[in-house]
Amino acid sequence: VTLGELGERGLIERLRVRLGAPGPGVLLGIGDDAALVRCSQGDLLLTTDTLVEDVHFRRPSTTLRTLGAKALAVNLSDIAAMGGEPCFALVALALAASSAVADVDALYEGLADMAGRYGVALVGGDTCASPGPLVVTVALLGRVEGPPVRRAGARPGDLILVTGTLGAAAAGLAVLERGGGSASSGALETVVAAHHLPTPRVPEGRLAQTSRRVTAMIDLSDGLATDLGHLTRESGVGAEVRLADVPIASATREVAVALDVDPWVWAVAGGEDYELLLTSPPDDATTLATRIRNETGTRVAIVGEIRPPAEGLRFLDAAGRAVTVPAGFDHFA
Amino acid sequence: VTLGELGERGLIERLRVRLGAPGPGVLLGIGDDAALVRCSQGDLLLTTDTLVEDVHFRRPSTTLRTLGAKALAVNLSDIAAMGGEPCFALVALALAASSAVADVDALYEGLADMAGRYGVALVGGDTCASPGPLVVTVALLGRVEGPPVRRAGARPGDLILVTGTLGAAAAGLAVLERGGGSASSGALETVVAAHHLPTPRVPEGRLAQTSRRVTAMIDLSDGLATDLGHLTRESGVGAEVRLADVPIASATREVAVALDVDPWVWAVAGGEDYELLLTSPPDDATTLATRIRNETGTRVAIVGEIRPPAEGLRFLDAAGRAVTVPAGFDHFA
Repeated sequence: VTLGELGERGLIERLRVRLGAPGPGVLLGIGDDAALVRCSQGDLLLTTDTLVEDVHFRRPSTTLRTLGAKALAVNLSDIAAMGGEPCFALVALALAASSAVADVDALYEGLADMAGRYGVALVGGDTCASPGPLVVTVALLGRVEGPPVRRAGARPGDLILVTGTLGAAAAGLAVLERGGGSASSGALETVVAAHHLPTPRVPEGRLAQTSRRVTAMIDLSDGLATDLGHLTRESGVGAEVRLADVPIASATREVAVALDVDPWVWAVAGGEDYELLLTSPPDDATTLATRIRNETGTRVAIVGEIRPPAEGLRFLDAAGRAVTVPAGFDHFA
Repeated sequence: VTLGELGERGLIERLRVRLGAPGPGVLLGIGDDAALVRCSQGDLLLTTDTLVEDVHFRRPSTTLRTLGAKALAVNLSDIAAMGGEPCFALVALALAASSAVADVDALYEGLADMAGRYGVALVGGDTCASPGPLVVTVALLGRVEGPPVRRAGARPGDLILVTGTLGAAAAGLAVLERGGGSASSGALETVVAAHHLPTPRVPEGRLAQTSRRVTAMIDLSDGLATDLGHLTRESGVGAEVRLADVPIASATREVAVALDVDPWVWAVAGGEDYELLLTSPPDDATTLATRIRNETGTRVAIVGEIRPPAEGLRFLDAAGRAVTVPAGFDHFA
């Protein structure tokens, strides 16, 4: 069955039934002109992100189910980077009328699964025919009590922390584009999965915000070099990163060897890791890192220090020498 | 200058400066991972709608400025149809990296102008490269105190009302596709403008909601036949519409004569008028129509009556005979 055969009304009914009862706070879900939600306390965070076929993903190397999950995950990462609690999502989908309904079902299954994992209610959306690439746009609302953690706020002397490991998503993209060489299938699966579906660091971001020990935070969507640049620019500071302390997973290192690539290039300039980059005064940084590790299982590494603005953004090799790193991702370049 | 030359960061800075200070309730606007807004009272309405090039619009027959305004207007219409007050918008844009920055500026000018007219703050968004058609998705939040007006709620005996006139947008589309024949330039301009940029009936919808005299409401995006079908289905009722009472503007009638089309086909089956269709008990309907007319200047016509469910959806000609009307728009058919 194609979307053209099912029709718009049929699709909305199908989604309404398949997505089931909406979560708490949803007074009206799918099916009217707008959804109605109740936000009893705190301020609201709003974000939107789009994934475009042949720009952000290719079929069939990614499944529609994974794509649906990723479309929400990248938005969850933005709410996480403010320290918020995600709550309501809207989905806008443009795809060919000849698409199989099973594909739309799979995409919504991925969305619903990711939404369920993070306590998000899918409250509405729009699906329309498109002669061009598949485009998925998610808009996400989150709650936050007290001040969110902004990109601005880092001060000289603060330590720089990152969650998880960096470079795996870029390694996965390289494998999809060039093949995996002699790397083990386990390593290849790990890095390709990291590229296809990031883990949004929502509980980690919540801990950062509620700790009140974090001075600035951003998610790593465009690569450490680019995103740290955003954070330091907004904060009006410089920064120094010790490359030897940047955490890289063993699978990423193995694939780097197989493809003869310096893994630090992926870790510093590769995008889409969706880890959190945060800054914290030195007296608080270790406590915070330990607390996030204990409560979420996610490792937090201290990778450098915020410096006075005149020092700019510097990456140091193991010998303490400043090295030039490649620029990160620009969506139009 | 193209988007590729300006770069993502340059574009965000440009938008931040050009859009100026955000409105009340916006604690953080463009430039961080998410926007932060404050909604002090009432529940929140959420909606999203997408416009896709060569599906919803064609260039250069529509300007980018008008397109930006329309992308917000169709979302405003959804909030209006619930009786809500629109407040915050997010914009997601997918377009070619080779696009002129002046085009993006024009699109945002149209968005900002429409936002300003309806008291909406543009709080954030996402812009990404797309190899395919230009795609604009807006997500819009609105406030509502007390119950919104749903599609469900119409009862047998209620009268059916519509704001403004119907069919002008379909007439405009016909003119763009087939030319305007012998119609006057004034009439052609009127209907083409109706197609390019609807007027969302926000104050009219607010009056409908606060009056507590409206039992059901929907906006006319897919045509009277289709959208009344949605309303009656959700309400579990039937309906009878007197075609002679369906308001059609003189420009629409003139173009219909010139193109040898029955104007009622445009009025009943043509989409994109974005007028409001509402139902109200007979004792209240005239008072409500007069009040909306007096307070907004928008004419409200009584076009029919809600009937028991067994009677289905019927359109009557001037002699009171049931006539068959063409189906409205389905996005995938």
